[in-house]
Amino acid sequence: MTTTTSTTTTLTPTTICVFCGSSPGTNPLYAAAARDLGRAIARRGLGLVYGGGTHGLMGAVANAAHDAGAPVLGFIPQAMTQFEGLLPVGEMHLVPDMHTRKRRMAEEAGAFIALPGGFGTLEELFEMLTWSQLAIHRKPIGILNTDGFYAPLLALIDRAVQDGFIRPQARGLLVVRDTVDELMEAVMAFEDAPAGARY
Amino acid sequence: MTTTTSTTTTLTPTTICVFCGSSPGTNPLYAAAARDLGRAIARRGLGLVYGGGTHGLMGAVANAAHDAGAPVLGFIPQAMTQFEGLLPVGEMHLVPDMHTRKRRMAEEAGAFIALPGGFGTLEELFEMLTWSQLAIHRKPIGILNTDGFYAPLLALIDRAVQDGFIRPQARGLLVVRDTVDELMEAVMAFEDAPAGARY
Ligand SMILES: [Mg+2]
Repeated sequence: MTTTTSTTTTLTPTTICVFCGSSPGTNPLYAAAARDLGRAIARRGLGLVYGGGTHGLMGAVANAAHDAGAPVLGFIPQAMTQFEGLLPVGEMHLVPDMHTRKRRMAEEAGAFIALPGGFGTLEELFEMLTWSQLAIHRKPIGILNTDGFYAPLLALIDRAVQDGFIRPQARGLLVVRDTVDELMEAVMAFEDAPAGARY
Repeated sequence: MTTTTSTTTTLTPTTICVFCGSSPGTNPLYAAAARDLGRAIARRGLGLVYGGGTHGLMGAVANAAHDAGAPVLGFIPQAMTQFEGLLPVGEMHLVPDMHTRKRRMAEEAGAFIALPGGFGTLEELFEMLTWSQLAIHRKPIGILNTDGFYAPLLALIDRAVQDGFIRPQARGLLVVRDTVDELMEAVMAFEDAPAGARY
């Protein structure tokens, strides 16, 4: 394993890719945070990239961003429209499969933010962390920790750092904040990973 | 969202795909568990499918399985050999990229088991859970919870179930045990997900 010190500076994002549940969740704070995030993206003149669903938190962030004037770009696999709905907001792309969806979202994203979600959201988040660690991309990755939803995830990452599976510096690839404004501030200011965060 | 009750029975696995760290971890219990798992795979006459690395827990499980007589099938992206080593045990396939690695591992796997690991391990685990939820595959997925490493992950999943992002039945897609023998027993006996676990 070689450690290289990077001097590359991340470009300031012009779009935010949001990963989140296709369910609204039972805690109303989550949908409120999703709408807040959609509006914050618009207010900063950014675009939203997302999974194209119309239900749940996905629909909430997309509708809020669109209503507030942000360009919205969605990627949904043809076969998923039956699960996640299809009532396009903004520019909607039907893609052949899940892999193409994730690849296209990652290409169009300037930064990634995860809201609460299930297995799919967690997979998208960890895939972008893995790719960042391998320097496949160098884009900021944020978690909105609304009502402490992600506290157990942070405990898991801390355990993996403590036990030697994640380098302490690689923990710095992940920006975690409790509120939309703090998170957007930190994500937009993220310059590059700490030295040694990547292989 | 439509709920279908599946009557499909999962085939009894003939291979186990193991996801784990390319680091050994600082807790010696993890490497011991990886060796135990490799030997248990061989003892049951199964094959090992894995990410092809020679370091850390990956190397431990592969060497133990191979030494105990199990066929070992590894998939490693050309570009990763610099990080994960390349001293083949069993049948090693160099693949063009990370996506091909994961697709080929999933194709060759009869079941999936996660040992402790970092971002990459977590991503592989959540991807297989997502695919199971979507019925892209119907293979058992297990976690070896050595020394409680995965307790925070289980807390995160419980929170996501409680908050409406993962259906209670979908929690049943994941088989969790503390010891290799209990886990192998449960994974081999896994017939299919509870009704309603999948979309
Ligand atoms: Mg993935």
